Amino acid sequence: MTAPVSYFPALAAPDPQTSAAARDRQDRLTKPRGALGRLEELSVWVAACQGLCPPRQFERARVVVFAGDHGVATAGVSAYPSAVTAAMVTNIDGGGAAVNVLATVADATVRIADIAVDTAQPLSPAIGAHRIRRSSGNIAVEDALSPDEVVEAIEAGRRIADEEVDAGADLLIAGDMGIGNTTPATTLIAALTDTEPVAVVGRGTGIDDAGWARKTAAVRDALYRTRGLSADSVALLRICGGADLAAMAGFCAQAAVRRTPLLLDGMVVTAAALAAEGLAPGAKQWWQAGHRSTEPAHAVALQHLGLQPIVELDMHLGEGSGALVALPVLRAAVATLASMATFEEAGISGG
Amino acid sequence: MTAPVSYFPALAAPDPQTSAAARDRQDRLTKPRGALGRLEELSVWVAACQGLCPPRQFERARVVVFAGDHGVATAGVSAYPSAVTAAMVTNIDGGGAAVNVLATVADATVRIADIAVDTAQPLSPAIGAHRIRRSSGNIAVEDALSPDEVVEAIEAGRRIADEEVDAGADLLIAGDMGIGNTTPATTLIAALTDTEPVAVVGRGTGIDDAGWARKTAAVRDALYRTRGLSADSVALLRICGGADLAAMAGFCAQAAVRRTPLLLDGMVVTAAALAAEGLAPGAKQWWQAGHRSTEPAHAVALQHLGLQPIVELDMHLGEGSGALVALPVLRAAVATLASMATFEEAGISGG
Repeated sequence: MTAPVSYFPALAAPDPQTSAAARDRQDRLTKPRGALGRLEELSVWVAACQGLCPPRQFERARVVVFAGDHGVATAGVSAYPSAVTAAMVTNIDGGGAAVNVLATVADATVRIADIAVDTAQPLSPAIGAHRIRRSSGNIAVEDALSPDEVVEAIEAGRRIADEEVDAGADLLIAGDMGIGNTTPATTLIAALTDTEPVAVVGRGTGIDDAGWARKTAAVRDALYRTRGLSADSVALLRICGGADLAAMAGFCAQAAVRRTPLLLDGMVVTAAALAAEGLAPGAKQWWQAGHRSTEPAHAVALQHLGLQPIVELDMHLGEGSGALVALPVLRAAVATLASMATFEEAGISGG
Repeated sequence: MTAPVSYFPALAAPDPQTSAAARDRQDRLTKPRGALGRLEELSVWVAACQGLCPPRQFERARVVVFAGDHGVATAGVSAYPSAVTAAMVTNIDGGGAAVNVLATVADATVRIADIAVDTAQPLSPAIGAHRIRRSSGNIAVEDALSPDEVVEAIEAGRRIADEEVDAGADLLIAGDMGIGNTTPATTLIAALTDTEPVAVVGRGTGIDDAGWARKTAAVRDALYRTRGLSADSVALLRICGGADLAAMAGFCAQAAVRRTPLLLDGMVVTAAALAAEGLAPGAKQWWQAGHRSTEPAHAVALQHLGLQPIVELDMHLGEGSGALVALPVLRAAVATLASMATFEEAGISGG
């Protein structure tokens, strides 16, 4: 996958020297080699991202929920009306949503960004600081964004990542909130991976068979306008994505530019990440997949990125919820490498 | 599976009325029905165990690591010598082991109990308060315990559970530490599930092919002495188990008697739990499987118990480490049911 427009600088991998030192230290900890399974690999990755062995525990894990509506919701592709997006932005702002509650358990904080909610005004100036437009276009019949808007949205996500890293974030999570957003996300994944709509369209928030058929038709119609463009992330975000998805893509790519580890959430975020890997090849080395949802497109996108989910709990909510359930596992991995005794320190001769 | 000797009273299930109320509340939270996947089911289970909806977050999660040596270690079934058990008891007591570090991340505390470590004296009177003997017998050639010892060991585990619940524990985790303990645990699982040794014997802490062949021979020889006894947990713990395994079985059963939820750890703890379900039929309703390890016997035992692991991370360390990585997921589940807003509270009309 190569990007026709280079929005991002060439990306280096997390530090290979620290990676080697971390692997060596894991092998000297008081447990059989490999006995911590994936925790070992995750701990080595965090150390390499930080360029530090032993690694530091995350002190400012930050979730950014990208909110946006989608014209395609009028095509009957969701179990909920668009008005729920704005109501959920208010709920997240008030601390009552899943993302808030799960962030507390995982010791993370939450920011909600209105990128394209279908209201006259954003809930607050801060929440709307990077708003691009009121809803994105109905991809079943028109492009989601204009050529200028897609660039502005990618830049918005990039600026949000910069703001968070500048404020001290040492782990980023992207979350999504938007009625109808699984339709453009599924289309993006189908386009970027050359997959048939029927193989990727899922139930989203819980549509019935007729809804699924309408959603599949919308994906197929949008996909038709993307033919020949599977290597052009910017064009795909414009045609069959949306402002929120483009912002998430900019955010995921910029996290990598800033050498900040990022946990992917569900299908919508992973669709944006797949596009981001096109914008900034190599960015995926700075990401881990938090979870695998029940959406079929999610599995396709993760496989394409070569990422293995940390947890699989049949979740399919978005908001960053799956990544937040995975975050304590990543913390556990860091803690082993940072705080366990080595055989030498414990005065035990290794096996 | 029925117990020939009834060590435990008849066990009731977690409260079905609270379970129904919890399910109803989950359906009214601000997310699509079912979108939290297994978190929903876990939250309902915790509420039912507590008899409280919404449930309380765990305030005193407690790990008890049952330490014991096994004569069979002399048969070359482990990558480590028996002396490592006592050294690891010291390491756990000093806070340097995986269980300590992971407990800190999961907000749990750790107790280590010397049930049958191969030393002249326990590390301290407190650690050795429930010690049964110095090492258990070599099950390849002799019974692990005498008829009196197996009863004493079950009672020791039962008393430890009582002590912890009386001290306020609201979630229990059993962990194991003992060189050679995967050999008796594997034999127990083979005996309790009528499975061939070759289908269940794994690599433990990392033995080579020759070690695996010796281990399989030891399991086969021990299994021969258990023929016709697959329904008698007490006899099996005596013949092919050990004092630590019997104590763990008493602990897991008594947790259920005390209506206290318990997270199972790896293969060794799950072998003891399988025996405990024989001692106290219905006890398994009070347990969840924290993780699934790479040991083949673990999958067999979990399937027999009908338990689905919360995480699968290729861990195979014991000590309670896998359960501790799963604990934050259980906390996340509780938090959603305890703290998320309902649609009504958020002023949103549901889907």
